[in-house]
Amino acid sequence: MSTLRVAVEPAPDQHLASAIREVGGSVVPLAQAQVLVWIGGPDGFPDLPDTVEWVALSTAGIERFVDAGVLDDKRLWTNASGFYSRGVAEHALALLLGGTRQIVRSAKTRWAKDAVDPAVRTLRGSTVAIVGAGGIGRELTPLLKACGATVLAVNRSGRPVDGADVTVASDRTDEALAQSDHVVLAAPDTPETRHMMNDRTLALLRPHSWIVNVARGPLIDEAALHRALTAGVIGGAALDVTDPEPPADDHPLYDLDNVVITPHVANPTGRLTQEMAPYLAENLRRYVAGEELLAVVTADRGY
Amino acid sequence: MSTLRVAVEPAPDQHLASAIREVGGSVVPLAQAQVLVWIGGPDGFPDLPDTVEWVALSTAGIERFVDAGVLDDKRLWTNASGFYSRGVAEHALALLLGGTRQIVRSAKTRWAKDAVDPAVRTLRGSTVAIVGAGGIGRELTPLLKACGATVLAVNRSGRPVDGADVTVASDRTDEALAQSDHVVLAAPDTPETRHMMNDRTLALLRPHSWIVNVARGPLIDEAALHRALTAGVIGGAALDVTDPEPPADDHPLYDLDNVVITPHVANPTGRLTQEMAPYLAENLRRYVAGEELLAVVTADRGY
Repeated sequence: MSTLRVAVEPAPDQHLASAIREVGGSVVPLAQAQVLVWIGGPDGFPDLPDTVEWVALSTAGIERFVDAGVLDDKRLWTNASGFYSRGVAEHALALLLGGTRQIVRSAKTRWAKDAVDPAVRTLRGSTVAIVGAGGIGRELTPLLKACGATVLAVNRSGRPVDGADVTVASDRTDEALAQSDHVVLAAPDTPETRHMMNDRTLALLRPHSWIVNVARGPLIDEAALHRALTAGVIGGAALDVTDPEPPADDHPLYDLDNVVITPHVANPTGRLTQEMAPYLAENLRRYVAGEELLAVVTADRGY
Repeated sequence: MSTLRVAVEPAPDQHLASAIREVGGSVVPLAQAQVLVWIGGPDGFPDLPDTVEWVALSTAGIERFVDAGVLDDKRLWTNASGFYSRGVAEHALALLLGGTRQIVRSAKTRWAKDAVDPAVRTLRGSTVAIVGAGGIGRELTPLLKACGATVLAVNRSGRPVDGADVTVASDRTDEALAQSDHVVLAAPDTPETRHMMNDRTLALLRPHSWIVNVARGPLIDEAALHRALTAGVIGGAALDVTDPEPPADDHPLYDLDNVVITPHVANPTGRLTQEMAPYLAENLRRYVAGEELLAVVTADRGY
């Protein structure tokens, strides 16, 4: 059997090259490749020779590739869904604690003890809902449990998430929100999840509730969020994603002391291929063995 | 045997009253008390009748009481050292993650992706030194371990801290700093620890290192810290305490994007008696049983 021939485009990468060699493959130009590992965005995506049987994209979400018409049905496509879950979960914990322990408000003010002291909350004994509890939720759950929180997982199927105290199906999201102190959004952007946090659902939360979004901006109706934050309906918002990105520089959310927006860095670009490498190695091994790949894209679901 | 008579001053408190009744005691005016639970600061501390055999102060540090000459040797004094460790540990984790995940810089800027993205670090695989690893260190260790960090504990004796990967005695602090990615200060303020973080010791850290202080402001030479932060010697500082407190409103540390100062809220005033209540109940039980109390003050050590 000939050597596995893998192209890495649009630029070489040492972490991925090591992963390819680790499974006995070799890095080749695209014209000779069976597999293309594409570590760019949709711009500049190449015309593919028919020899390419599988394209491995390096992003967890692939909306932009779908919108750009890059995907075809001539070959297998994978994304990196789940490959960055651990890091994203850590970022979600950082955003949540940054809110509840008033790190955010403190960064935006100067020794505002009268405002900060009574607003500090502990996760111990609190209930945190993870809405869209897949890979990120599985990684976030033990972190929240270590902090003494009760974890209420919400996912499509309602199939129990390891370690979560309770898992419910997404048709019971309202109920979950009403029982939670804080909410972490980790759901994909689909027609069903678009603006799932709106005036009505934000009102199910509490005046001390922080909402964390490490998923996709469109899950939140930002005008409704701004209303809820200024009216004291919820305690604050810690967002890694917005709609659109970047937000306007004079976006009103920036002016609030109970809001932080990290610039879509839960999975930082600079660490991407390093985090992806072990998963690529595993998928190449599966490809050679004829096993089912991780993170196969189902284009009609949009993720 | 007569009922245990406990005064709670300078104001009544439901959480502490419940704790007192829970052990069969009753809340009485100071003139009739064997025990005074004092939930204020040194100002307005009353003249004590000779009948008071034990004063339970509600703060973890008692420097201000010592300075005000409140303590005497006619009776037993306790503070609340250790009673708030769990909450302080959570705050330390929030400060550390707020730094390493660039929540702080993001709160102070607007979608500064070029600065934030390359600066985001993960605790997974990092080494965190806890300097002064007592009660807070014991509570912080499992939180850091859950995030995948290696914990290097430093304490006076070098006696192993449960769960820490390595514990060393404080005469090896330099060595610990040189091996760490980040540092959490949790040591008491003593002549030995004063300005322990200075130009020399800060230089032992790394350009990505965050320093967290949940202990006492004087542990850090703030002028040296400012120099280290602006010169890129370390990555950032997340402080719950300063020297003095509050800092001047135009303190130069406030101007840096890699600094956050929370206004001494790791143990928030509003939650103090609720957190203290179970420990008071335990100490009252020990008092009645003639056992050694928790958190007895040794005035000559100043804490």
